[in-house]
Amino acid sequence: MTIITPVILCGGSGTRLWPKSRASKPKPFLPLVGESTLFEATLARNAMFDPPVVVTGAAHLSHVEAQLGDRPGASIIVEPEAKNTAAAIALAAMRLPDEAVMLVCPSDHHIGDPQAFAEAARAAAELAEQGWLVSFGIEAKSPETGFGYLQSGEAIGTSGYQVAQFVEKPDLERAKAFIAEGAYAWNGGIFAFRVKEFLDELEHFRPAISVAVVKAVRDGREQGQRFYPDAAAFKAIIGESVDYAVMENTAHAAMVPADMAWSDIGNWQALHEARERDADGNSVTGPAELVDCRNVLVESDGPRVSVIGLEGVIVVVDGGEVLVTTADGAQKVGKLSGAANQ
Amino acid sequence: MTIITPVILCGGSGTRLWPKSRASKPKPFLPLVGESTLFEATLARNAMFDPPVVVTGAAHLSHVEAQLGDRPGASIIVEPEAKNTAAAIALAAMRLPDEAVMLVCPSDHHIGDPQAFAEAARAAAELAEQGWLVSFGIEAKSPETGFGYLQSGEAIGTSGYQVAQFVEKPDLERAKAFIAEGAYAWNGGIFAFRVKEFLDELEHFRPAISVAVVKAVRDGREQGQRFYPDAAAFKAIIGESVDYAVMENTAHAAMVPADMAWSDIGNWQALHEARERDADGNSVTGPAELVDCRNVLVESDGPRVSVIGLEGVIVVVDGGEVLVTTADGAQKVGKLSGAANQ
Repeated sequence: MTIITPVILCGGSGTRLWPKSRASKPKPFLPLVGESTLFEATLARNAMFDPPVVVTGAAHLSHVEAQLGDRPGASIIVEPEAKNTAAAIALAAMRLPDEAVMLVCPSDHHIGDPQAFAEAARAAAELAEQGWLVSFGIEAKSPETGFGYLQSGEAIGTSGYQVAQFVEKPDLERAKAFIAEGAYAWNGGIFAFRVKEFLDELEHFRPAISVAVVKAVRDGREQGQRFYPDAAAFKAIIGESVDYAVMENTAHAAMVPADMAWSDIGNWQALHEARERDADGNSVTGPAELVDCRNVLVESDGPRVSVIGLEGVIVVVDGGEVLVTTADGAQKVGKLSGAANQ
Repeated sequence: MTIITPVILCGGSGTRLWPKSRASKPKPFLPLVGESTLFEATLARNAMFDPPVVVTGAAHLSHVEAQLGDRPGASIIVEPEAKNTAAAIALAAMRLPDEAVMLVCPSDHHIGDPQAFAEAARAAAELAEQGWLVSFGIEAKSPETGFGYLQSGEAIGTSGYQVAQFVEKPDLERAKAFIAEGAYAWNGGIFAFRVKEFLDELEHFRPAISVAVVKAVRDGREQGQRFYPDAAAFKAIIGESVDYAVMENTAHAAMVPADMAWSDIGNWQALHEARERDADGNSVTGPAELVDCRNVLVESDGPRVSVIGLEGVIVVVDGGEVLVTTADGAQKVGKLSGAANQ
């Protein structure tokens, strides 16, 4: 029986969900869809596996501990600074037994179908046990230009494929061609690796990261369930995503298709789509009155919001800030001075 | 030399400018265009005439007195209850000498060209001295369906016309025909009457109102600059507008054309049009950031408002309420539960 250890990555600031998501309480720790926070929901859908390893920064530690609660065996790696996903995953890997399968999960995504996630996770773990480095290939429902794509190649058994090609965020024309062709899936940043294979490939393709992480772990210190890697050693790392550092280089890249109502909740429009909506497509959180509205999202932390005659508009009131944007404009929220200067 | 006494009517709630205009501080007392409140601006453009008579209700008295300031000779008639404009004007008339010319002005309109107002007022007062009951005919710039219209007939001297017909709020087709024909002006609710002629016509066409107001004034009491008509006598009145009660009946209805950048500031869209706008048509009051916006009005009493990608939208934040509406939707603001249940 495969041992699956969830490795939950808690970084990022989520400025595109400003003013709800802020530096002081970012996206993973907010109840954006339903009652649970995205981090809590990530823990919940991994609860059938081994206790998780959470990798986070000092700034988010209090939120992580509060929402992690009492989970025997769970551990938290407190990164001295953010060095992107290759280093974060390597930290976890070096503290786990060689034969463990890591199920690497971002903590700020929404998965509407946890059962489908669990099935994909089992399939991915099986391939990882055979030595594959496995990405979840999220069924591409629309020609998104904000995601990388995985092109599936030869089948491996009944539930996976070799990855023929990793494709960076495409333009709209290419994205449409991918959807039409059908052999492409979104790269959702969820992975299954056996520890040994991951560390071997990292050492091979990014020896500098590997050496620095070995040192950071060797010279780190435990404090209860927390582990603090050595800051000086970690500082030397040039941050890189696991896709760049490992996945695009390895000869053992595989993917399992996953159709699990996934969303990265990358902006307010994506959040609107992930939420339950009424017959007019409206979604309301907090006190509000909508008249002649369609596909409107209202989210307020207190003040009443009255909206008349609008379509496809997002209104967010939070912490004394008011945001009003079109669906397209939602992409630009992170660049507002309110979001940028927190 | 004609004595002109401004009679300034301060009633109404202005629910269509909610949440800025509220029962506790309605439209006339707010600085909606420029630095002055609409009431203060009304006083200012009448300052070259005799001291004004202000007709208001007890609910607005404190605002009236605070904004009226120290104006020797000014007086305030405190209506026991609102009985529409015929009775309000009659109250003022019965406290003025017969030969005085009343210049009746609503206190919740904006007039962008006070010089043109002054000229029209002089012309109207001249006609009033000749015994005409004079309406200001506001140059109709567009086929508005929210106003009554005055059809001008035979010329009287060089600056006025007899009124051929009063037209109730028309539908759009009729309004367009009026604009095309050219002999129609908006009825802006501004009038010049000599006291004697007004009271004679009121007595003739609405003897019940006349008798009741005589009694209310006879049994009323003075208190400093305030005059309180008798409540019991006033209560008997069936409220009617001066248009219905007098103007549409009299054989002496006249009009003077007035092109004076007038607006009744009847809703947020009208206010937006009365305000100064930047090159993109945006108008901002309070802290705000607009990105890719055109013809957007933002008004905030404190919270920052960030708007992306919208056109022709109004965002108002006031007293813990947030309103977002299209230009067309602005007509419906008064029916929002926030506006209706104050």
